[in-house]
Amino acid sequence: MVPHLTTALTGPLLELERQFLDNQTEIEQWFRSQWLETTPLFYGSTDLRNSGFKLAPVDLNLFPGGFNNLNDVFLPLCVQAAQSAIERICPDARNVLLIPENHTRNQFYLQNVAKLVSILKLTGLNVRIGSLLAEVTEPTTLELANGATLTLEPLERRGARLGVKNFDPCAVLLNNDLSAGIPAPLQGLDGQWLIPPLHAGWHSRRKSNHAHAYDRVAKDFATHIGIDPWRINPEFGVCGQIDFKERTGEECLASQVDTLLTRIRSKYKEYGVKDEPFVVVKADAGTYGMGIMMVKDAAEVKGLNRKQRNKMSVIKEGLQVHEVIIQEGVHTFETVDDAVAEPVVYMMDHYVVGGFYRVHTERGRDENLNAPGAHFKPLAFETCCTLPDVQQGPDAPPNRFYAYGVVARLALLAAAVEIEETAPAVLEEAAA
Amino acid sequence: MVPHLTTALTGPLLELERQFLDNQTEIEQWFRSQWLETTPLFYGSTDLRNSGFKLAPVDLNLFPGGFNNLNDVFLPLCVQAAQSAIERICPDARNVLLIPENHTRNQFYLQNVAKLVSILKLTGLNVRIGSLLAEVTEPTTLELANGATLTLEPLERRGARLGVKNFDPCAVLLNNDLSAGIPAPLQGLDGQWLIPPLHAGWHSRRKSNHAHAYDRVAKDFATHIGIDPWRINPEFGVCGQIDFKERTGEECLASQVDTLLTRIRSKYKEYGVKDEPFVVVKADAGTYGMGIMMVKDAAEVKGLNRKQRNKMSVIKEGLQVHEVIIQEGVHTFETVDDAVAEPVVYMMDHYVVGGFYRVHTERGRDENLNAPGAHFKPLAFETCCTLPDVQQGPDAPPNRFYAYGVVARLALLAAAVEIEETAPAVLEEAAA
Repeated sequence: MVPHLTTALTGPLLELERQFLDNQTEIEQWFRSQWLETTPLFYGSTDLRNSGFKLAPVDLNLFPGGFNNLNDVFLPLCVQAAQSAIERICPDARNVLLIPENHTRNQFYLQNVAKLVSILKLTGLNVRIGSLLAEVTEPTTLELANGATLTLEPLERRGARLGVKNFDPCAVLLNNDLSAGIPAPLQGLDGQWLIPPLHAGWHSRRKSNHAHAYDRVAKDFATHIGIDPWRINPEFGVCGQIDFKERTGEECLASQVDTLLTRIRSKYKEYGVKDEPFVVVKADAGTYGMGIMMVKDAAEVKGLNRKQRNKMSVIKEGLQVHEVIIQEGVHTFETVDDAVAEPVVYMMDHYVVGGFYRVHTERGRDENLNAPGAHFKPLAFETCCTLPDVQQGPDAPPNRFYAYGVVARLALLAAAVEIEETAPAVLEEAAA
Repeated sequence: MVPHLTTALTGPLLELERQFLDNQTEIEQWFRSQWLETTPLFYGSTDLRNSGFKLAPVDLNLFPGGFNNLNDVFLPLCVQAAQSAIERICPDARNVLLIPENHTRNQFYLQNVAKLVSILKLTGLNVRIGSLLAEVTEPTTLELANGATLTLEPLERRGARLGVKNFDPCAVLLNNDLSAGIPAPLQGLDGQWLIPPLHAGWHSRRKSNHAHAYDRVAKDFATHIGIDPWRINPEFGVCGQIDFKERTGEECLASQVDTLLTRIRSKYKEYGVKDEPFVVVKADAGTYGMGIMMVKDAAEVKGLNRKQRNKMSVIKEGLQVHEVIIQEGVHTFETVDDAVAEPVVYMMDHYVVGGFYRVHTERGRDENLNAPGAHFKPLAFETCCTLPDVQQGPDAPPNRFYAYGVVARLALLAAAVEIEETAPAVLEEAAA
């Protein structure tokens, strides 16, 4: 099922999907040419927002944690795409060590890990799970609510190689976003593939680098198929020296917010959009919906109370926030049974392998839906994203999902560009 | 649904599928290493026979004509695999010319062409259909029984390039097996990809070359996972100088048949198989179930009557048969509603993308099922071939289909080896 798109707007609604449909051949050729230049990453997921007049990614995750939410019908697509990724990155790999996040009490996350393990096994890999948790001192088997089991094993470092007992992997696949920095066992490895590369972790990754890369990718794509890039690209700005606790940098932030809101207002006017513009202030590093604030007026960021400042100043793993990105907010006008929904698209190699709707019954259409809680539920996509049907309307499920797949792949391509450009060797060379 | 496997045999039955299941990781790794050495072809299909004690390919088609018989649920797998094939063979291709067979009155074949066109379009290619038929002198649109339409266009040769009106393709995809030789418009092309290469056509291809390549592939694979190669490999022999009309070469044929039957009897004894061995005599070049004879005793090939000799002496396009392959017959013990069934597996690039059962209500389990007629019906596979489930029995659908996928891929790999080895340049070099 596809959520309803409920908006008062009548003009550009569905026109974007129609443009994608009409240009499908051009779009696929364009992607093919891009992937000749840029090497795909192993996997990624992206959160999209669809306001009808704008369809844009608002987040690109390089350590996707919701494979369990995908429709099992599309598991063969995951396996085929994973085979392709393995052949590209480490064709002679036999043994893979998977390093997950440390939250062993989150059943949903553990089911994600189990699904990922099963996909990797189906591609013909021996897979073991190495835990970064200090308390995992021996193989620990977890029984999952869905009947699956997972065995976490203590990591063993042997010289410059990482493994677990009696298991020397050719590749280490990270499903841990490294927010807390590069853990000691992962430092100074040699002779093993690290997937994705370490600098893709949130200890060094910056949302603003991704936004810059996406900006270029979106502009190139939009020019190519003849659309206004704004339709797929959220405006953004960056503040690099902020301290919410010390209340420094507020002026810079307020000024950026104001500039952005002015630009959005002008675009809304151009497109006849009556909604109230908003921007999202986020920590430039980090994830998990922490350190995020929705702002509709620059004045709001100048008078933050203690609670707001505390909320913004610390993200996952207790990291302090000193750099923020200010991103154009995109209303989500998709609803399931009156609850607000936001599509999440999953990709492996350069293929879309499925997706789901993040449905939140207690959040508004201008709020962040990536927030845990009883009112969150995933709704798997019912059709895949690769079979547009020009015989049907632009909002028919295959066509809506095709549009999602296109924008998601743009974000994935931008991430691949971003990770290539931010590789330590590349940065060193640029500095030299 | 999976047909029933009805055999009195109790010993090795299902043991083969169990071996594949238990060695799944090894098998996938082995394939991965093979595909590093050998480049996959664009597409192929294979006819399998499953006698319970033996699961073997009996034909490998490089111009598959039954994409319309596949389960539409797996269309995304076709699209993903076709994308992979295009990226491998002609990544910068935009325009593809498809050249189908000439039988414009066969609705099933035309639906196959239509399905193939839709798959190619979904990968982002402009596709036009060029007809070799002399009577197609202007664009001719055919309405298909399933509501689809196809437009055949006259070929246009411009120097060393082939196209249709206002369409200069980067690649020419053949769905015509070239039984009648290389048509003039396809001769001496330069600067365009020909997929598969011309020498894959039946004007030059020989079943015996494929059988030799399969023999090596099967032995290597069987050694690797520790099974008797005979379990997946039909014995074969070749007679190179036969003339059914002139009754020359009969002695050679009878002697080969006898040798083969003796070897099979000994193997049947080893495995406790009570069935009556048989061999299949086929034209070494050619397809469409023509020029095929089932033989249970060498004497049979010495006393052929006029009708039998006529049947064997001519194949598709009226070609004379002078070379035959004698292949071990494999009983098919699969039945659907008491009708005999034979699995056909479809592949693109090196991926299995689906399959169907060829069900024939008027043929025996030791007969050729690739024969047209009202009693033939296709039955699409319900699950895909990449999701074995070790929790279930070896004959559960996902596991049966996995086994089919493994053997089919062995045949596909052998075809890729065969086409590499029989490339004109390679043969010239070997002769020099």
